[in-house]
Amino acid sequence: MHIPDPQPRYKRSVAVDMDEVLANVLPKFLDIYERLNGFRPAREEYWGKKIYLLPGASTMRQELFKPGFFADLPLIEGAKEGLEWLNAHFEVFIVTAAQEFPHSLNEKYQWLQMHFPQLTWRQYVFCGSKSIINTDYMLDDHAFNLEHFKGVPLLFTASHNLEEQRFIRLNNWTEVVQWFENELKR
Amino acid sequence: MHIPDPQPRYKRSVAVDMDEVLANVLPKFLDIYERLNGFRPAREEYWGKKIYLLPGASTMRQELFKPGFFADLPLIEGAKEGLEWLNAHFEVFIVTAAQEFPHSLNEKYQWLQMHFPQLTWRQYVFCGSKSIINTDYMLDDHAFNLEHFKGVPLLFTASHNLEEQRFIRLNNWTEVVQWFENELKR
Repeated sequence: MHIPDPQPRYKRSVAVDMDEVLANVLPKFLDIYERLNGFRPAREEYWGKKIYLLPGASTMRQELFKPGFFADLPLIEGAKEGLEWLNAHFEVFIVTAAQEFPHSLNEKYQWLQMHFPQLTWRQYVFCGSKSIINTDYMLDDHAFNLEHFKGVPLLFTASHNLEEQRFIRLNNWTEVVQWFENELKR
Repeated sequence: MHIPDPQPRYKRSVAVDMDEVLANVLPKFLDIYERLNGFRPAREEYWGKKIYLLPGASTMRQELFKPGFFADLPLIEGAKEGLEWLNAHFEVFIVTAAQEFPHSLNEKYQWLQMHFPQLTWRQYVFCGSKSIINTDYMLDDHAFNLEHFKGVPLLFTASHNLEEQRFIRLNNWTEVVQWFENELKR
């Protein structure tokens, strides 16, 4: 899988989102839904929607503000190997909207150190708004982060964005790596 | 050189640094120096230098990593009224290199909420590197943050940057407000 850099020029920069791109929020949301409602929703009930807009889930988003929510999220499938590859070939920044949830600041910091020890704190950006982020690419599951981005916007598929059609869509980390491998040849 | 739109229909954006621009680190450094050495250095001993490079201050920078360092820093003179004015006329982002000091994340968040309640968390950016920040202006005491900035770089005077001559220098918050008042007329 090693693709040599075509030129020893500067590494192009990529802003990579955390929640639903690196960290999998869905299992914890399903656990919370089950605790609130006594049963686990079937995939077809929530897929294609925002899960906290389901009936019986109106208090679910409050969980994001509680200590511990972001501390132990599992990795999205393929994210570990995918981000390591990306970090070797591009200048990677982890750009995450953490400030709405103050407890998440330390939890996200520690999560990144645990799962991605080859990245340094110099690559972490915790912000309220991504509107002032200037990188060559942005990989994100939220269209509102990509809409006004001046580089190449890349939509990472998540349950809530299936109908979004304005951006290049990458469905999983295998597709992310393939897409960036092609970019390296350009 | 970025030239702002002469007739902007949107508020121009300003990245404002925290340490030594809004928060005054010097009194705490002087306290630490006195605790380490038994006396307080005279202004002429440290002014124009990095204080933690003084003889007897070699362990001083370690204090930045301890819990509490950033929690109770006093305001820089004029910063409160100055930033409130700036926030009313420009799109302000507080952009601070917090990630080197993990404890500082929560401490800076709470400090901002306490001293600047009219700003929201959407305006906070805690980053390891400011290289990906894209605003119309950046106000910072460190030349290395301004060197590669694509907007208008503005150097806020601090003890360690007196010899820096590459940027527009603003010596205090009175000068900051005067400078931006003139910008509003452009």
